[in-house]
Order: sequence, then structure tokens, then C-alpha cells
Amino acid sequence: MASDQNEVSKGLEWRIKVADGSSEILVAEAKPAATRVLLCLKAFIVGLASKVWKFLHKAWDVGVDDPRKVIHCLKVGMALTVVSLFYFMRPLYDGVGGTAMWAIMTVVVVFENTVGATICKSLNRMSGTFLAGFLAVGVQWVASQSGKRFEPIIVGASVFLLASAATFSRFIPSVKARFDYGAMIFILTFSLVSISGYRVVEVFDLAHRRISTIIIGTALCIIVSMLVCPIWAGQELYTLIFRNMDKLADSLEGCVGEYFKDGDDIDESDKECHKKLQGYKCVLSSKAAEDSMANFARWEPAHGRFNFKHPWKQYIKIGASMRSCAYCIEALNGCINSENQASEYIKKHISDNCLKVSSNSSGVIRELALTIKTMKKSSNIHFLVGDMNNAVQELQVNLKTLPMLFNPPSKPEAVENPENKTTEQQPASKTVDTIMPLMDIIPLVTLTSLLIEIVTRINGIVDAVEELAKLAEFKPASNDKCEKDDHPMNNNFLPDQQKDNDTMKVFQRV
Amino acid sequence: MASDQNEVSKGLEWRIKVADGSSEILVAEAKPAATRVLLCLKAFIVGLASKVWKFLHKAWDVGVDDPRKVIHCLKVGMALTVVSLFYFMRPLYDGVGGTAMWAIMTVVVVFENTVGATICKSLNRMSGTFLAGFLAVGVQWVASQSGKRFEPIIVGASVFLLASAATFSRFIPSVKARFDYGAMIFILTFSLVSISGYRVVEVFDLAHRRISTIIIGTALCIIVSMLVCPIWAGQELYTLIFRNMDKLADSLEGCVGEYFKDGDDIDESDKECHKKLQGYKCVLSSKAAEDSMANFARWEPAHGRFNFKHPWKQYIKIGASMRSCAYCIEALNGCINSENQASEYIKKHISDNCLKVSSNSSGVIRELALTIKTMKKSSNIHFLVGDMNNAVQELQVNLKTLPMLFNPPSKPEAVENPENKTTEQQPASKTVDTIMPLMDIIPLVTLTSLLIEIVTRINGIVDAVEELAKLAEFKPASNDKCEKDDHPMNNNFLPDQQKDNDTMKVFQRV
Repeated sequence: MASDQNEVSKGLEWRIKVADGSSEILVAEAKPAATRVLLCLKAFIVGLASKVWKFLHKAWDVGVDDPRKVIHCLKVGMALTVVSLFYFMRPLYDGVGGTAMWAIMTVVVVFENTVGATICKSLNRMSGTFLAGFLAVGVQWVASQSGKRFEPIIVGASVFLLASAATFSRFIPSVKARFDYGAMIFILTFSLVSISGYRVVEVFDLAHRRISTIIIGTALCIIVSMLVCPIWAGQELYTLIFRNMDKLADSLEGCVGEYFKDGDDIDESDKECHKKLQGYKCVLSSKAAEDSMANFARWEPAHGRFNFKHPWKQYIKIGASMRSCAYCIEALNGCINSENQASEYIKKHISDNCLKVSSNSSGVIRELALTIKTMKKSSNIHFLVGDMNNAVQELQVNLKTLPMLFNPPSKPEAVENPENKTTEQQPASKTVDTIMPLMDIIPLVTLTSLLIEIVTRINGIVDAVEELAKLAEFKPASNDKCEKDDHPMNNNFLPDQQKDNDTMKVFQRV
Repeated sequence: MASDQNEVSKGLEWRIKVADGSSEILVAEAKPAATRVLLCLKAFIVGLASKVWKFLHKAWDVGVDDPRKVIHCLKVGMALTVVSLFYFMRPLYDGVGGTAMWAIMTVVVVFENTVGATICKSLNRMSGTFLAGFLAVGVQWVASQSGKRFEPIIVGASVFLLASAATFSRFIPSVKARFDYGAMIFILTFSLVSISGYRVVEVFDLAHRRISTIIIGTALCIIVSMLVCPIWAGQELYTLIFRNMDKLADSLEGCVGEYFKDGDDIDESDKECHKKLQGYKCVLSSKAAEDSMANFARWEPAHGRFNFKHPWKQYIKIGASMRSCAYCIEALNGCINSENQASEYIKKHISDNCLKVSSNSSGVIRELALTIKTMKKSSNIHFLVGDMNNAVQELQVNLKTLPMLFNPPSKPEAVENPENKTTEQQPASKTVDTIMPLMDIIPLVTLTSLLIEIVTRINGIVDAVEELAKLAEFKPASNDKCEKDDHPMNNNFLPDQQKDNDTMKVFQRV
């Protein structure tokens, strides 16, 4: 029995035995209660420790991934410590008459990650408080004129009506986008001031102190967020858009490249490649981020290369056109990964064209990304678009010659697809000749169709970026040699671009 | 001059005259200042009135669209009026010692549209307040033991550290999803209690009153939101998912139907039809709504047909698989609307097959929507999936016979596409025969490829819904006649389904 108990105390084994049957349960019950409690406690602590460890690991990753988040946290801590000076310093404390609490609350609630969000919330809080404060004082005055009996009724009814109306306004999309927080603060302040007015006689004084502490809190938040390592929503949106564009280009080029790649070089750097291929998913999922950042960016003052009236809304349009392109890449990816595949022989015939279209169109997207990044009108976007459209036309012409490959009877080895076995039951031998290529080329035709559709949608992105260049008055890129060499397009993706001087005419878009 | 001024006072005309030149400006300057101010005021009031009118119109639409939003607003007003009783009734007011303000604040901040969101925020607010309150009292005690000199330093440092850490935790995705609001309340309460402890001697009392008023506020919110016309996040998610499924089915059927429709009947009910076609866009854009509702639904107690541990996460998976299907419909829509179109003759050959695939696959999606809606395992989903996969195979077989249409020289009238003019320069007449159909059928081949890809992805939705049926323990549908007649599938979309008894075997999926 003693050795039994020794075994049992190994925790895991003990639990397995309990699950086995009734005879084992007797042994478990014979154990002293203290040991069982200790074991439970140990398991609990180990489990907790591993969870905490995992959580800390995740937190560390978040911090390493974007150190500015850590800086933001320190900024919040700093702002709160500064605000607490109101409590520690007697003259300041007496100045705001004990309502320094509101300043602390304002800092906690209003301080956001980006400058735009902080300003937006600050202005919302201030205007909501002002408006509600004035209204509440007015209602309070009317109520106090109507005698002790009606006072609570008037105040109660006005709270009910205004709170309902303000809550309803938060459902209206245009209000929700900009003044959601302001509407909430309006309800809060109105209720507080008008109801407490029934008790606290100095309504004016309460409203005044609340407003002044809120102004102190918001001013502190805005100053800290703008001066200490500022994170501008506009800058973030701008970075998000051109990075997503690069990802889109990588995905498109990668997808088509992967499809036409020889079987040999699949293993090397597979993970890296796979990550690049999935870049379009970032574009698909970044709508909410774009919308909120564009919404906050419009509250920001001029910063960096962006002036106050920078056309942030246009970035949303660019994002939407990128997304419409990403949908097609998603479908393309699905078709490429499907089981039905064209035979290697047919693929080779058209691979050069497809690769050219994909590399030209990724070139266009990268050039657009560079246009946005440098905020300078691209001097060769029209050539690149022309090249892309020409490549599409070449692809279409080549597609027309595809059936010729199959009509000469000298190429029977091209038939490898197991699906074609059914065609042997067909009556006429001539028909068999024509059927085989059709089934073989279906994946290829789909790929080219989708590529052509993608090119059409890329033209949409080009239009959206040109509209941005017009609205934000981008300057034309200077033509000096040095800058051209820095241009990633010219070095990596279109090496023939500068040599072919005969292509230097503006092509018509498809 | 007098008649001139009469003319001028027509507002619009006056402004045009100013823009014309200097001679007119003299007339404008001759006008009395009072008239100008009045005109400006009038224009301003008219502009404001039209804006307010538009806003009210929009608000009215929001209310008519979902009357529950209006009810929610009345609920908020009610809860606030009830809470204000604390101020109006002396015994209650004395009971919470003047901090009834916190109860009002809690109601305003915590009351959300759905029960789940209200409970989530309430629990966050309570736990954040408790935790921060205890910690703050501890810190306060340590600080008070270390003498007057070190007290502000210890308090300040602890506020800085804990506020920074809590702010950082809000960036960790798992914390952000569930405890974002709790972390904010933690910072708020900790700062308030630990800092004001330096002034207000009764820290315990402050913490106790704050906690008790918050409990009163949250309890009131939860009770009102659950008892008065409750809106459950779970119910909303469930409705969103099956409605989106129906929209997806309509879009798919509509898209393919539109493509193969004769030119004659385009005009009638075009708007209605267009709206149906665009239904898939709701699926594309509802990710954020699904995520947040699933997040709130898990806080809700058992309600209606949903028990407490209902697998809400599975709805997110179903939403994701629907979205992957919607991406393909988006691409399909693009290809259908592109300029390159197959000739009517070829379209007719394959239209029956394509329409069958699209109607069968929308049938499957509608059956899945019904499975979710009724929360009963479908008895004929396997037959429907089998039918769908059979239709795909038929389509593939028919595609193989497509080239035969062109090889007999008896059908020259099929060649209508202007692009084929270039092929006349080709040397061999046999080659011309084969080239023409290829260019003609490219849109059709793309359409069928995408249809096949869509069918593959629908199989993904089927799997996700079956997983849901397993996790949520859906009961099998009863087989009585009455219920089958209610079944929209059997009446509208697959009339042959019940007649074909020979199809009553479970098909293998592709």
C-alpha cells in the first residue's frame, strides 16, 4: 500500500488510474487529503506558469515586431505621471478645486496610438462636454423655475429624450465615423451635470471645472502624442498602402512564376517564397485599418510631407482598387493549385508570355508604389503600362497559335493527362485531335483570362494613383541619372526598359 | 439705383455680379451692410436647413431599416432615468454617499446594442475596477509606510509602470479581443485610487463606493438589456451567416443566369436583379461584423435555441469559407462583364450545363443556409452535393465535345467576333478552323473553370457547416411530408429532386 501511494504521487499516473475503474478509485481515496491538494496546486501552478510564459513570449514578439508600441506605452505612463502632479502639488490642486480626477480620466480615455486618433477623441470629448454642459445648465435653469414638484420630472424627461436621441445618432454612419465618442461624452456630461444639478447647487461651477480639467487633460495628451516620437495616422496609412502594393506585386509575380516553375527548384527557400505568395491576403484584410486611419488622418495637422488638406480619402480608393485586384489573384491562386493541370509541353509554349505579362504588371504596381512612396509623378509609368498592355496583346496572339501545336500528328507525347483517357471512346480520330488540346489547355486559358482581368484592374489602380498625384499635387520626378539608378524598377525588374529607345512613345491603354 | 438694388437682393444674382468685374463690385459695395448680412444669413439658414433635413432623412431611414435600433435608444434613456433616481431619492442617495455619479457613468459607457457586448463590457469594467482597486490600496499602504518624502515617488513610479504595462497589454491580440476595455478601466481606476489616496485619506472608502456604484450600474444595464426586447449577439451572428449564404446563392445563380440570358429580357426588373447580383459583396465586407459578434456571443447566457457553450467560433470559419467562395464570384463577375464575349452560338451549346451547375450549387448553398436556420441536419444535402458534382462532371464532358461544333464546315455563321479577322492571314485553312473556336471559347472556358473552382470551395462550406452541426449537436430533420413542403429547396430550385428516386444514393464528393 505504501509503494502504491508512492506511485500514485506521480500526479499524471494517479489521474489515469482514477479514470480506469472503481478499484483504483479506492486507492485514490486512501491518499491523504493534503497530498492531493498539493498535487492539484502543483499542476495548477505549472499550468499557470506555462500560460504566463507563453503570454510573455507573445507580448515580447509584439514589442519586437513594432517597438513604437512600447514607446506609446511609455508615453501613456509619462502623461499620467505628469497629470498626477496636479494631486501632488498643492497650488495646482487647489486651482482646479479637487476635480483633477477628470484630467486623469481624460488622459486615460483620450490617449491613443496615433496623433490623429488622439486629436479626434480630444476634440470629440471637448465639443461633447461643451455642448452638453451648456444644454444641461439651460435645462437646469428651466427646471428650477418650474418649482420643486416639476423639477425632477423635467430633468428626468430631458435626460431620457436627449440620451435616446444621442444614442440613436451613433447609429447613423456619418456620425458614427467621426463623432461616436463625442455623442457618448455628450450623454455622459448631460446626465451628470443636469442630474447632479439637483443636488449640487453650483451647476455652473461643476460644468466650468469639468471643462477646464478636460482641456488640461486633452492638451497634455495632444502635446505628448505630437512631440514625443509621434505616430501619425496619415504616415501609417501611406506606408500601409505602398507596402501592400509591393506585396501585391510580389504575390502576382510569385503566383505565375510558381505555376511555370520547373519541378527541380521547388525545395529551396520554399517558406520564404510561400510567405511572399500570400502577400495579397494582407491587401484583402486591410480594409478596416485603411478606413480608420484615413478617418483619423484628416484630423492631423501638416506633418512631414503631408499638408493639412492631403487627400486621404483617395488612399481609400487606391486600397479598394488594390483589393479588387487581390480578389482576382485569390481566384488565380485557387486555379493554380487545383488538381487539373496543363501538361508541361503546353505550359512551356505560353510560359514566356505569361511570365512577361506578370512581370510587367508587377512592374507597374511597383512603380505605382514608388510613386506613392516618393510622392513624385513617375516619368515612365506610361511606358510601363504600355509594355504591360503590349504583353497582354502578345499573349492573346500567342494563345491563337496554340492549337497549331496539336494539329500536326508528330507530337503524341504531349498527351499525359489521365483525364484524356475518356476521349478514346470518341468516334472520329480528327475530333480526338482537337479535343485533347482543349482539355489540356483549360487551366492555361483560365490563367491567361484571369491575368488579363488582373491587368484591367491594375489599370484601375493606375487611374486611382494618378488621381492622387493630381489631388496631392505630386511633383514630376527629376530626370537625373543618379535617381534613375536608385529606381528599383530599372535595376531589377525591367532591365531592357532603358536600352529600348524605340519604345519611348506613349502607348495607348487597352 | 433703387431697381438695381432690388435686383441685387435676389442673392444668387448679386454674387454672380461680384465675380464679373470691378464695375459690379461698386454696386455691391453700395449695398447697405444690413442687407448683405441678411442675405448671408438667409443663405446660411437655407443651407443649414437643407443639411439638417438631409440628416433627419438619413436618420429616419436608419430607424425604418432596423426598428430595434430605436428600441435600443429608448432602453438607454430608460436605464439612465432609472439611475437618476439615485439622485432624486434621498435615502438611495445617502446610501451610496454621493458617488451615484459612477453609476450614471457606468450606464452610459457600458450599455451596448447587444446583450453580449453589454455583459462583456460590464465584466471588464467590474474586474478591471476590482483588480486595480486592490492593487492601488496595496501600493498606497506601501507608500504611506515609507514616509512623506518617498510617498509621491512610489505612487508616481507605480502609476507609470502599471499604466505602461496595461497599455502594452492592449496591443496583444488575445487581450485586445476580450479585455481591451478592462485594461483601460484598470489604468483608470488604479491611477484615480492610488493618486487620490494621497489627498483623500479614506482610500478604502473611495474604492468601496466606486465598486458598489459600478456594480449597481452594470447590474442595471445587464438587466435592462436582457429583459427589454433583448438583442443577442449570437442570434445576430446566426442571422447574418444564413442571410449571407442566401445572398451568395442568389449572386452565383444571378451571375451565371445573367451571362446566358437572351438580350430581350434585360430591361425588366433590372434594378432588383442588379441588387441580387451584388449580394456577394455583403459576404466580402462582413468579416469585422462576424468577428466582433462571435466575440460578444460567447459572453451570453443560453438564449433561444443556443446554449451557453454554442460553438460560435465555427460561424467564423463558415464565414471565412463563404468569403473564399465570394472571391471567386467576384472574379467571375469581372470575367462576365469583360468586353471579350463568346458568340451566342457557342454560349447556347454549353449554357444548359453551366446553368445546371450554378443552380445546383446555389441549391447546395441554400440547403446549408436552411440547415443553419432550422438548426437541423439536412437529410438531402448529400444528394444535393452529389447532384452538384455530377453537374460539374457533365459540364466537363460537354466541354470536351465543344470543338466538334466547329470542325464541320457547315457552321460558318457562328463566326461573328471581330477579333477573328486577324486569323484570315493564317496559311492553312485547317488551322483557321481550330483557331477560331479557341478565341471564341476563352470567356466560356474561364467561366467554367471558375464555376468548377467555386464548386470546390462550396464543398469547403459544406464541410464547415457539417462541423457546426456536429459541434452544436443539430438534430436530424424529421421526414414528415408537411416539413418537406415548407422546404424552399424542394419547391423552387430542384423540382426534380424528389421524383428521381434512383438518385437516392450517397454520392462521392469530387
